[in-house]
Amino acid sequence: MEIAEKKEHIRKIVRRARFEGKTIGFVPTMGYLHKGHVHLIERSREDGCFTVVSIFVNPLQFGPSEDFERYPRNVERDIEILKEASVDAVFIPSNEEMYHVQHLTEINVLKLSEKLEGAIRPGHFKGVCIVVAKLFNIIQPDRAYFGWKDAQQLIIIKKMVADLDFPVEIVPVPTVRDEDGLASSSRNIYLSSEERKKALILSKTLHKLKEMVELDKISDTKILIAEAKKMISSENVVIQYIEAVSLETFEPVSRIEKNTGILVAIKAGDVRLIDNVIWD
Amino acid sequence: MEIAEKKEHIRKIVRRARFEGKTIGFVPTMGYLHKGHVHLIERSREDGCFTVVSIFVNPLQFGPSEDFERYPRNVERDIEILKEASVDAVFIPSNEEMYHVQHLTEINVLKLSEKLEGAIRPGHFKGVCIVVAKLFNIIQPDRAYFGWKDAQQLIIIKKMVADLDFPVEIVPVPTVRDEDGLASSSRNIYLSSEERKKALILSKTLHKLKEMVELDKISDTKILIAEAKKMISSENVVIQYIEAVSLETFEPVSRIEKNTGILVAIKAGDVRLIDNVIWD
Repeated sequence: MEIAEKKEHIRKIVRRARFEGKTIGFVPTMGYLHKGHVHLIERSREDGCFTVVSIFVNPLQFGPSEDFERYPRNVERDIEILKEASVDAVFIPSNEEMYHVQHLTEINVLKLSEKLEGAIRPGHFKGVCIVVAKLFNIIQPDRAYFGWKDAQQLIIIKKMVADLDFPVEIVPVPTVRDEDGLASSSRNIYLSSEERKKALILSKTLHKLKEMVELDKISDTKILIAEAKKMISSENVVIQYIEAVSLETFEPVSRIEKNTGILVAIKAGDVRLIDNVIWD
Repeated sequence: MEIAEKKEHIRKIVRRARFEGKTIGFVPTMGYLHKGHVHLIERSREDGCFTVVSIFVNPLQFGPSEDFERYPRNVERDIEILKEASVDAVFIPSNEEMYHVQHLTEINVLKLSEKLEGAIRPGHFKGVCIVVAKLFNIIQPDRAYFGWKDAQQLIIIKKMVADLDFPVEIVPVPTVRDEDGLASSSRNIYLSSEERKKALILSKTLHKLKEMVELDKISDTKILIAEAKKMISSENVVIQYIEAVSLETFEPVSRIEKNTGILVAIKAGDVRLIDNVIWD
């Protein structure tokens, strides 16, 4: 596995792979890798791609009161995981390598970026769009793999790619869950065992909603959301939002059908968790 | 010369050229070609590039009260000029090919986009950035050629490319002038012969400023701007702005030195004209 810290180095590695006729698969991460990331990597490898992973905790997507400083990091462990997963190359740039003294360019996907996560984390998706655009331009992958866990991020990136004609295919990959059902996330480490137990209500609720839709054929989102609120409220967690929305516009929908989803954010203690169930 | 109207077609043409080991040079235009455009093409050909030209009158960079509808167009004549100039391929997309029903992604180069042209034409540079980003992603050139005539556009594009890591080298090319000194521009066709005669004060003034700086060694921008205003006011034209600025920040400078310029916009009758003298 090759490790590059400089843009020019990773570009050279990718150029060589492309010259050898390989398709480039890319998995952008903020490190502190878990099995969700490994699943993205496996998808890229199954697709026969020369697989590049980036590890970069992007300051631009954190708000001033958010957890940029304390976001978990362990690059040595990440590198072992990536080697184990047979990744071909990893790009681990510094902040200085990624951002000049005065970065002035903003990318904003209007409307989609303002709702749900965007309403709670103003500027978050601008930061995501900038770093993803930069990484796409540095690595120039043929395919990039994003998890459904961050559904709004996935859809905003897809929209940016379509609107700006990036020559990249965005491959959505289902959410991976830990054994207790909690969606795998680097931030799960913040949870005390007490909080984690409470937080499980989130995946349980989404599992229940999936059954209500698919087994009981209930598609009225009022009924589904009411049930979800009731279930989640049984635990001592705070619902930040729970909405049934179109996966194209994030506008609320009254019925579950193709291309809709129910997206939830809760706080268990001080820890924010997001999860969703989608019908794509 | 190959002519492509679809993104997939021009991508295929460029892929083939790249496969043959060629370097891709790109000249984006809004058509109604003049010798300024031809000069950009010549630069690309001198650099040994497989040269792609785009013709697209980009609606997003025109304000609601601007001249999008009446902007001069003559694709047949343009194609003859491009053949004559030995261009390899031309991309002539429709509006529908370039923009979906609902384009939501904005690109904004903060600060640089707000001054001078940006102050007079709000949103103009956002439209420019979007179309250039799209064209870069569609054509994926190694080099793109931009004229100093639109100095602010050139610098904003350079900043966008640096900030977003586009793998494109931006090549600045000196302004080309008609025989009477007027900077070549598609919009010159709007000028009556009377207006054109008045408009010549612009290039005469800039020529005089260049002499004052380079022969008389006057670098105090107060003196230079005062002289310019006096000269331009001798004709019946309106000065929209005349500023001596840094070519990095567009902040006013008190002395002419490396990487500064004097940028001017006037109105001769209803016709806006921009021009500049730069020390790069």
